[in-house]
Amino acid sequence: MYIPTYDDMLAAHERIQPHIRRTPIRQSAYLNELAGCELFFKCENFQEPGAFKVRGASNAVFGLNEAQAQKGVATHSSGNHASCLSYAAMLRGIPCNVVMPHSAPQAKKDTVRRYGGKITECEPSTSAREETFARVQAETGGDFVHPYNDPRVIAGQGTCAREFIEQVDGLDFAVAPIGGGGMISGTCLTLSNAAPETRIIAAEPEQADDAYRSFKAGHIIADDAPKTIADGLLVPLKDLTWHFVSNHVSEIFTASEEEIVDAMKLTWKHLRVVMEPSSAVPLATILKNRDHFAGKRVGVIITGGNVDLDKLPWING
Amino acid sequence: MYIPTYDDMLAAHERIQPHIRRTPIRQSAYLNELAGCELFFKCENFQEPGAFKVRGASNAVFGLNEAQAQKGVATHSSGNHASCLSYAAMLRGIPCNVVMPHSAPQAKKDTVRRYGGKITECEPSTSAREETFARVQAETGGDFVHPYNDPRVIAGQGTCAREFIEQVDGLDFAVAPIGGGGMISGTCLTLSNAAPETRIIAAEPEQADDAYRSFKAGHIIADDAPKTIADGLLVPLKDLTWHFVSNHVSEIFTASEEEIVDAMKLTWKHLRVVMEPSSAVPLATILKNRDHFAGKRVGVIITGGNVDLDKLPWING
Repeated sequence: MYIPTYDDMLAAHERIQPHIRRTPIRQSAYLNELAGCELFFKCENFQEPGAFKVRGASNAVFGLNEAQAQKGVATHSSGNHASCLSYAAMLRGIPCNVVMPHSAPQAKKDTVRRYGGKITECEPSTSAREETFARVQAETGGDFVHPYNDPRVIAGQGTCAREFIEQVDGLDFAVAPIGGGGMISGTCLTLSNAAPETRIIAAEPEQADDAYRSFKAGHIIADDAPKTIADGLLVPLKDLTWHFVSNHVSEIFTASEEEIVDAMKLTWKHLRVVMEPSSAVPLATILKNRDHFAGKRVGVIITGGNVDLDKLPWING
Repeated sequence: MYIPTYDDMLAAHERIQPHIRRTPIRQSAYLNELAGCELFFKCENFQEPGAFKVRGASNAVFGLNEAQAQKGVATHSSGNHASCLSYAAMLRGIPCNVVMPHSAPQAKKDTVRRYGGKITECEPSTSAREETFARVQAETGGDFVHPYNDPRVIAGQGTCAREFIEQVDGLDFAVAPIGGGGMISGTCLTLSNAAPETRIIAAEPEQADDAYRSFKAGHIIADDAPKTIADGLLVPLKDLTWHFVSNHVSEIFTASEEEIVDAMKLTWKHLRVVMEPSSAVPLATILKNRDHFAGKRVGVIITGGNVDLDKLPWING
């Protein structure tokens, strides 16, 4: 297991800067009053493909040597990683193969195809996915870019925290959602080196709280099939992300489904940005743990903005 | 009639800068491809009270002398001007009286009250509003700040275009929605002096196209009670705004209700910002007049982001 270093993150930032946006910080006096602290929201939902995952994906894609680049990249994902990897591959002009269950939402498939990604569909089970992926990789020779348990991906995600501390001085806390732990690990990598006084908080849905239970138990606990509206946070920690979480995260807080939806609507209304349910988990946990954050400067990463506008969770139940 | 000058706009900018946000520019490669031009969206929906109107309101409020400030300000409006004027008055710590029909949406009343504005309700007719407003103004001595036909307001709105041309070089077009014409007039004031090569386009709903018809006729035509989803654009031009529109606007384009809703949804999806139907009219007209904008650099002002999240026009019809 190769653990990415601070220098890897710096190299990633230099590599990907022409291909990503330096996303802006949003604030709301109203939300500050509500939360009792000063909130700074970094809008990764404003990346072109709508998620921070374009950072790690671009680092992997643009770091390939020419020989490997000809064969392209491959992954299995039905979420933002698939579209971000396709997007990065499109920018470099190389192939991207994605294995996706045929049950994945049509909108996700459309986005991957819009960016030139080639989808191979499989049955929606772990064994089918692994078999299909092995076959696709053997046929194409594409370099496997894991959605989060990959040092190149973690180094890439860490560039977000680097911009954050350049944009906002003296953050007491950095809060991000946790699923597989890619963003949190990148945040740990950067802040433990460049801003060790900033405490890192992971925010997780109560109904998919495997990271919270892992954190308490001291070893990885993976859930079988958690169900939550925060559909970007269903996957478990892996060895690399566990390394960062167990060494550098100070707390994992959880929020209920209702609290997540309330926080999502609050953000849409007062920050006026479109973000996914997964991205609302940090604000939900901050509002639930006001004492922990009282009077502090709190950085929140809005991780993504790809949401089905025809099915909003506060409309028709 | 006093016509505000370029120096008034510069003075307004210096006066209001501590109280407003310098709003960011958003871009989307996808929307650029769709429109066939390079689009730059200036996010005035990111102002704290959610609309560009905080610029003109702040210029009026912070320009009052101490004696007048003690008596505060007053206006009649059921829209963003009422909440933005209340917000600016709250920042200065002076009274703000607002006359509003009792039929105005509860959310609008709540926002005005949240910012400390005092609402006097009236019957929803022009005569009732005028009578009630005259009484309130006589009682309070509040300085009347008209939503748009006021040189201080127009000078304030002009600060948005000033930031825009500082942020984006070489705009071929600036496109903004037109209702009473406050934003368009401020844009004309600034650009006719500082960027005379940038053509100014006003965008209007077909179902409230009084500015379009005025522009063609060469004199103000006011509609009685236009109906459009773009509820910020219902009011007619007045003498001051007509001055700017008739002298400096190069085209007025219109869009249907369906085109406005489509453009609104496209922006939410691809820019990932929450904006009002009124703010979608520019993109709707650009997509409808691709030839006019082909290959050009087009600045679009997203005027506001106060929208009822429980009633989105693409859900349930």
